[in-house]
Amino acid sequence: MAEKKLWGGRFDQPTDALMEEFSESVSFDQAMAMEDIAGSAAHARMLAEQGVISKQDMGDILRGLDQVQQEIAAGAFLWRTDREDVHMNIEARLTELVGEAGKKLHTGRSRNDQVALDFRLLVHGRLFAWQEGARLLAQALADQAEQHVDTLLPGCTHLQPAQPVTLGHHLLAYCWMLQRDCERMEDCQKRTAVSPLGAAALAGTTYPLNPSAVAKELGFPQVFANSMDAVSDRDFALEALFSASTVMVHLSRLCEELILWSAPAYGFVKLPDAFATGSSIMPQKKNPDAAEITRGKTGRVFGSLMALLTTMKGLPMAYNRDLQEDKEPFLDADKTVSACLAVMAAMVLGLEFLPHRMEAALKAGFLNATELADYLASRNIPFREAHELTGRAVAAAEAQSKGLEDMSLEELQAIAPQVQEDVFQVLDYRAAVERRTTPGSTSPASVREQLAKLRVWLGDKT
Amino acid sequence: MAEKKLWGGRFDQPTDALMEEFSESVSFDQAMAMEDIAGSAAHARMLAEQGVISKQDMGDILRGLDQVQQEIAAGAFLWRTDREDVHMNIEARLTELVGEAGKKLHTGRSRNDQVALDFRLLVHGRLFAWQEGARLLAQALADQAEQHVDTLLPGCTHLQPAQPVTLGHHLLAYCWMLQRDCERMEDCQKRTAVSPLGAAALAGTTYPLNPSAVAKELGFPQVFANSMDAVSDRDFALEALFSASTVMVHLSRLCEELILWSAPAYGFVKLPDAFATGSSIMPQKKNPDAAEITRGKTGRVFGSLMALLTTMKGLPMAYNRDLQEDKEPFLDADKTVSACLAVMAAMVLGLEFLPHRMEAALKAGFLNATELADYLASRNIPFREAHELTGRAVAAAEAQSKGLEDMSLEELQAIAPQVQEDVFQVLDYRAAVERRTTPGSTSPASVREQLAKLRVWLGDKT
Amino acid sequence: MAEKKLWGGRFDQPTDALMEEFSESVSFDQAMAMEDIAGSAAHARMLAEQGVISKQDMGDILRGLDQVQQEIAAGAFLWRTDREDVHMNIEARLTELVGEAGKKLHTGRSRNDQVALDFRLLVHGRLFAWQEGARLLAQALADQAEQHVDTLLPGCTHLQPAQPVTLGHHLLAYCWMLQRDCERMEDCQKRTAVSPLGAAALAGTTYPLNPSAVAKELGFPQVFANSMDAVSDRDFALEALFSASTVMVHLSRLCEELILWSAPAYGFVKLPDAFATGSSIMPQKKNPDAAEITRGKTGRVFGSLMALLTTMKGLPMAYNRDLQEDKEPFLDADKTVSACLAVMAAMVLGLEFLPHRMEAALKAGFLNATELADYLASRNIPFREAHELTGRAVAAAEAQSKGLEDMSLEELQAIAPQVQEDVFQVLDYRAAVERRTTPGSTSPASVREQLAKLRVWLGDKT
Amino acid sequence: MAEKKLWGGRFDQPTDALMEEFSESVSFDQAMAMEDIAGSAAHARMLAEQGVISKQDMGDILRGLDQVQQEIAAGAFLWRTDREDVHMNIEARLTELVGEAGKKLHTGRSRNDQVALDFRLLVHGRLFAWQEGARLLAQALADQAEQHVDTLLPGCTHLQPAQPVTLGHHLLAYCWMLQRDCERMEDCQKRTAVSPLGAAALAGTTYPLNPSAVAKELGFPQVFANSMDAVSDRDFALEALFSASTVMVHLSRLCEELILWSAPAYGFVKLPDAFATGSSIMPQKKNPDAAEITRGKTGRVFGSLMALLTTMKGLPMAYNRDLQEDKEPFLDADKTVSACLAVMAAMVLGLEFLPHRMEAALKAGFLNATELADYLASRNIPFREAHELTGRAVAAAEAQSKGLEDMSLEELQAIAPQVQEDVFQVLDYRAAVERRTTPGSTSPASVREQLAKLRVWLGDKT
Repeated sequence: MAEKKLWGGRFDQPTDALMEEFSESVSFDQAMAMEDIAGSAAHARMLAEQGVISKQDMGDILRGLDQVQQEIAAGAFLWRTDREDVHMNIEARLTELVGEAGKKLHTGRSRNDQVALDFRLLVHGRLFAWQEGARLLAQALADQAEQHVDTLLPGCTHLQPAQPVTLGHHLLAYCWMLQRDCERMEDCQKRTAVSPLGAAALAGTTYPLNPSAVAKELGFPQVFANSMDAVSDRDFALEALFSASTVMVHLSRLCEELILWSAPAYGFVKLPDAFATGSSIMPQKKNPDAAEITRGKTGRVFGSLMALLTTMKGLPMAYNRDLQEDKEPFLDADKTVSACLAVMAAMVLGLEFLPHRMEAALKAGFLNATELADYLASRNIPFREAHELTGRAVAAAEAQSKGLEDMSLEELQAIAPQVQEDVFQVLDYRAAVERRTTPGSTSPASVREQLAKLRVWLGDKT
Repeated sequence: MAEKKLWGGRFDQPTDALMEEFSESVSFDQAMAMEDIAGSAAHARMLAEQGVISKQDMGDILRGLDQVQQEIAAGAFLWRTDREDVHMNIEARLTELVGEAGKKLHTGRSRNDQVALDFRLLVHGRLFAWQEGARLLAQALADQAEQHVDTLLPGCTHLQPAQPVTLGHHLLAYCWMLQRDCERMEDCQKRTAVSPLGAAALAGTTYPLNPSAVAKELGFPQVFANSMDAVSDRDFALEALFSASTVMVHLSRLCEELILWSAPAYGFVKLPDAFATGSSIMPQKKNPDAAEITRGKTGRVFGSLMALLTTMKGLPMAYNRDLQEDKEPFLDADKTVSACLAVMAAMVLGLEFLPHRMEAALKAGFLNATELADYLASRNIPFREAHELTGRAVAAAEAQSKGLEDMSLEELQAIAPQVQEDVFQVLDYRAAVERRTTPGSTSPASVREQLAKLRVWLGDKT
Repeated sequence: MAEKKLWGGRFDQPTDALMEEFSESVSFDQAMAMEDIAGSAAHARMLAEQGVISKQDMGDILRGLDQVQQEIAAGAFLWRTDREDVHMNIEARLTELVGEAGKKLHTGRSRNDQVALDFRLLVHGRLFAWQEGARLLAQALADQAEQHVDTLLPGCTHLQPAQPVTLGHHLLAYCWMLQRDCERMEDCQKRTAVSPLGAAALAGTTYPLNPSAVAKELGFPQVFANSMDAVSDRDFALEALFSASTVMVHLSRLCEELILWSAPAYGFVKLPDAFATGSSIMPQKKNPDAAEITRGKTGRVFGSLMALLTTMKGLPMAYNRDLQEDKEPFLDADKTVSACLAVMAAMVLGLEFLPHRMEAALKAGFLNATELADYLASRNIPFREAHELTGRAVAAAEAQSKGLEDMSLEELQAIAPQVQEDVFQVLDYRAAVERRTTPGSTSPASVREQLAKLRVWLGDKT
Repeated sequence: MAEKKLWGGRFDQPTDALMEEFSESVSFDQAMAMEDIAGSAAHARMLAEQGVISKQDMGDILRGLDQVQQEIAAGAFLWRTDREDVHMNIEARLTELVGEAGKKLHTGRSRNDQVALDFRLLVHGRLFAWQEGARLLAQALADQAEQHVDTLLPGCTHLQPAQPVTLGHHLLAYCWMLQRDCERMEDCQKRTAVSPLGAAALAGTTYPLNPSAVAKELGFPQVFANSMDAVSDRDFALEALFSASTVMVHLSRLCEELILWSAPAYGFVKLPDAFATGSSIMPQKKNPDAAEITRGKTGRVFGSLMALLTTMKGLPMAYNRDLQEDKEPFLDADKTVSACLAVMAAMVLGLEFLPHRMEAALKAGFLNATELADYLASRNIPFREAHELTGRAVAAAEAQSKGLEDMSLEELQAIAPQVQEDVFQVLDYRAAVERRTTPGSTSPASVREQLAKLRVWLGDKT
């Protein structure tokens, strides 16, 4: 049978079983158990320091919390739905273990500031984990890029081959996205690492608490500025969900490319067996499941962001129970982002690129057309005319199923008499790439510079 | 150790453990176990009927499926993650139970059409359950409305008291929303109850299957029109999520009102103890948690809709693994909508309305001002002038902290000499309400007509 | 200078200029001008029929409305922001034109039910237009499909070639999606074509109105059931936005495929010049801009749906000014969907498919591997072994850069001695496709059946 | 007639009129005209500095750009749809004005990096404007708070009165939200102020450009790290839209409270006439339209965020035309956020709070119940028992329609004999508030500290 609720005094009827199940949160907020214990320990130490509880009580509380922590870690803790949430479960168990002292833990604290603290601790910690995951993926991409500083492939716009680029350059584009993601997460952490403890229910407290001491012990550099804001602010969770959303935007783009590149039409890459599947009825198939699932999960993270934005809309001051709906979207996004980053990092490391396929695609795409137009322009042909002549050269080469570089000097001169023997140096794909040497461009030299900068960020020994 | 994958032939390396966990779906798609068994049984019967498998094999399969069903129902079924999904788990277990016949079940079928069928069966069934839930809530509202056909309260626009309405009328507004929700779900069911079995992987099948027979056995009136569409269409799930979203819009509105009405500033309603909570530190409080949580969960259902829309965007033909992300948003929305409807129905039944508080609010809101203006207009005062005179009367009454109906004839005549004794009949709130007798208006008579129509829909005996 | 507001009686200060601009809606709701006039004309006729206004007044009103309509059509109407919205602009102009009669038009009506009616008329009309647009696109697809009933291409799952399909079949998949979209819109229209006129501000009316007569004249089969619901319901707009969202899901998928197919790696299709762009610096390029823009606009329609869902969340009864935010998302979605459907229809008609490129892709994708496995299985080799042997055959052919059908009988027998001369009939791609003759499958015969059904829906002469 | 497209060389057919209208962006991207001119001027100076163009050409270009700027500012510029976008319109006009030099402006630049630069300049500038708007609103709130440092009202949780708070404290909660919004925008600016110029189409450039010089001139501290990322990154726009979304979350909450507080049931505040509306048929009404519209517009900004997230999902490298859909969501959000902040600031300044109504609500809400429970607990009554006794006292007072403080000592002692005369000091609402003096709590002293900190941020003289 359910225990009498702590707040049940004025109530004639017990909580309906339907309601009990509807309103409990322990089934998911036990994910914050360690944070709850850490927060309670810090609170207890501060209470004793401030003389609100005795050193003896503090000792009992800390000992009890330690045991609770061990029970949870060992899977021996009995989570009870009738105790509603992670906080009441831990507090009730604590009181079973250490008696009266346990009841004093809640002095000067309310569930409103307690849950805000625990959630902030959780989000803050996960943001570190996401950054670590993003860096591991960036490292995998950088390692592959390093192998392919000189490998050429068609750089596309509108999915149409445009100009040759190096594979290293292409892969590093994703590293910089991940680097921005990490920056955003760090910025989010500044606003997450603000302790709300001391805000109590909503109005602050009459006890002589020292909120800064609690914050300091928990590694949070800041303390809340306004108690009503403190208990109802969930900006940090929204911002974490937004950070997760941009990670997923980036992963979805990378996945789209891996799905394309591993399709036979491209054939630029072989996926590692360990991250692909086959077909039970079509023996020729190798499916890019990891990339597809990751791309598919993008929606889910956007959905979580939208969910919490909607929940927050129009809530009056201060705490409202609607806020209970803050944790599940975050936990789901956390699970998704963490798994996707880990899977992608492992898969990227196992990618086997096929440079000969990429090179073949350069030819088919007339990726040196820009070079020819530039060459003609430099021979004093107005650019618009150079552009048109090049178009005719492309058409002529296409008709013979060959590249511009495979045409004879005579053939080219028939189109544009200004063409000389030196045009063939210009039409060389590699040379075209190597001419792009400004910072951030695609030449091998520029890619090596990018890698050096990234390695610093990644903390790698170069 | 994991079994060799059915599709593993061409693969040198086993699936990575990370990938195994990332790509499995059995942890959530076991929610479709009963649907999978029903679909397989129908497929097996059809295969035998068409002579594709023997009657003996069919018998073995049906017997085996029956045992699998019992094992699952009894909680004795061992779900294995390395068997990826609900389909492979059931098929593998079936083959353990009945041997070779089990392997023949998959003839002329692919996981692509199988999963589409199972998901359609699940969604179709849940749409029935949601309609039932919506009707139960509508019934609770109608029962309350019936008790309050004559109870007056301020009808608001812009949250400002505008004109008196009956509580019955106000509550029935929500019934009609729920009725529309049910209509939408029925419409969605038409497009859900379309069997995709026979589409096979994507191109249809070479076996002489009879898709209509399978559809008929499963209670689906229609069969797919195009195999490529059949395996990649998830419109039905999107539409179900949209239906769930409008339900939540409506519930969020009702909850907002219950939260307002149970606040002391209004005090129009007492929530049942069984669906409220108190405060462990503020003994005077009674919190509308059920309404708040429901309102808060609105975002979550919107989020699920957004998630699946995003997942579907830009997917090429035909099946892509991204589609695996279709089930969790639906299952979450299902859990949410079902629980919210049930909780709201139970809570609404327990609401205790406080007519005297509502009546007091009528006076404070000058809810009969429109009546006075109309009265003056009917005395040949141009409406704009009537409106201004009424404004002055309101100001005068407000200054004396009383209602218009509490002013003396002299006081009113001092503002508008055309006023006669009969004005007091006009100023009567109840009379104002009773004059609104057109269909769908707020008078008790109109409300009784609405109730009669609703009872027909609800299938109640009147 | 701004006119005195009709409601300004009790107000001491005029509306702030900032507020005037912030709250006006005439800049966008003039899109409903024709609907407003039609609704007013119907209301006037009913008022006269019911004896609420004189025939003379009715005549004046109808004449005045007619002139207003002409002024608007001629672009000669002066829209004034200080008259807030389309309704007040038209009514004020009407009164300028016909005097006192104009003021009587608003009898028994409020802006709350008026705006709801106008918006319903607008949405209802646009839903017809969208259906027409969807049918035109479906027709274009069907016309192309008819030309390519026999054209083969690789059917993909996971973007990996899986089994050969006919291009006609592939294109018709999109027709069925569009057909579902139209069905959904029709269902939405049932719930849109419900007249709210007579609900007045929120409580119904004291005038002896005949709401059904108004509804009938406007072509709406139904009348509101509850006045409070009538003025605050925007389900129909949400549902229209959802219908628009599924259209965009489908278009985004089609666009993705056209973008892929027009990339040189595929080369399956040449886009019409009229719907593509080139590059000012890369003369070889032809960019699929129309498809990209359409795919990109998908987000915008989802965003509009999300916008209105969010706006509706938690609004108490009855009308709230938040509802003014209903029209812009709809108008934007309307513009988007209409334009995308029209552009896609025109572009699809101009597509030039390249069957030889598709055929070449069949070979490279080993699209007849399933057929070989089935052949072996039919020679009494257990399917799993047949699958493995096929895998080895694929590997052998791949090593020689040829298709399975290009191997000699001896080469195949070296892998599986059971293979006979008749295998080459089985390996024929066309034969594989033609064997799939069940309804909805990919064979030319099945495609012709689909076309016949679609033509009926499209109202074409076959 | 439309001009020949710059890229039209290889095209046989002209662009379809439908397509022309569909793909043009000049109707909205002319919002970036000033940014485009600034970017072009910086580019021209750098080109000359690097010796790529002559000083003479630079001079011509700058002079021409200056004239274009004046034409635009004067409204005399002819925007042409057939010139597609703002960039081509300006460039074509420039060339009309200065001849050949104009054509050289585009050297080493592509529309891909140009549009990215212009958009970054626009977003960066608007983020400053939003911060200014947020600070003005915060200032208005702080000014009101300063007037009400001592004004008491019920502080609510779950919309139920919980503990007395000061109005100053309550209002300042919103200031801190706005301060976080500004911080987020500043962080976003760090990632926005990165110049992409020099990335050219996607691969970087062969010209000896100096991207840092351009960035410096434009006030951007950073230059792109990777050219492919540079032309396809829209993270900054997503982040700006997210920043706008949190602003709207906060405004929607404030609006919800103003709507509640101005409802007669609360009556805590009188809205300024200049930001409210009346009713043309209900003379007693004063509607909080500005607050409702702002709350309603929240959805629209969320929708814009969702729109761009969806658009970005799954885009392969590098530029895709889908990206054209980046600007309208931003421009709409910009218009919305800017207007809402301005309207709210003006309205807040005009709010007239009614302290006597708030005080009356304190009594009705038994806002000193916590104090009584604490008092009893401090008399050595176990807290749970103290809580129960307080509940009985509340019930007794409620039965007599009075506050706890209005009970006699005897009445209180009948419930709890431990009560002494000093209880009445404890029950005093003001005293309860003044006891909450820890930083961030609700006491007037704490509020003054908050104000001092905020004034520093706001740059006000204290």
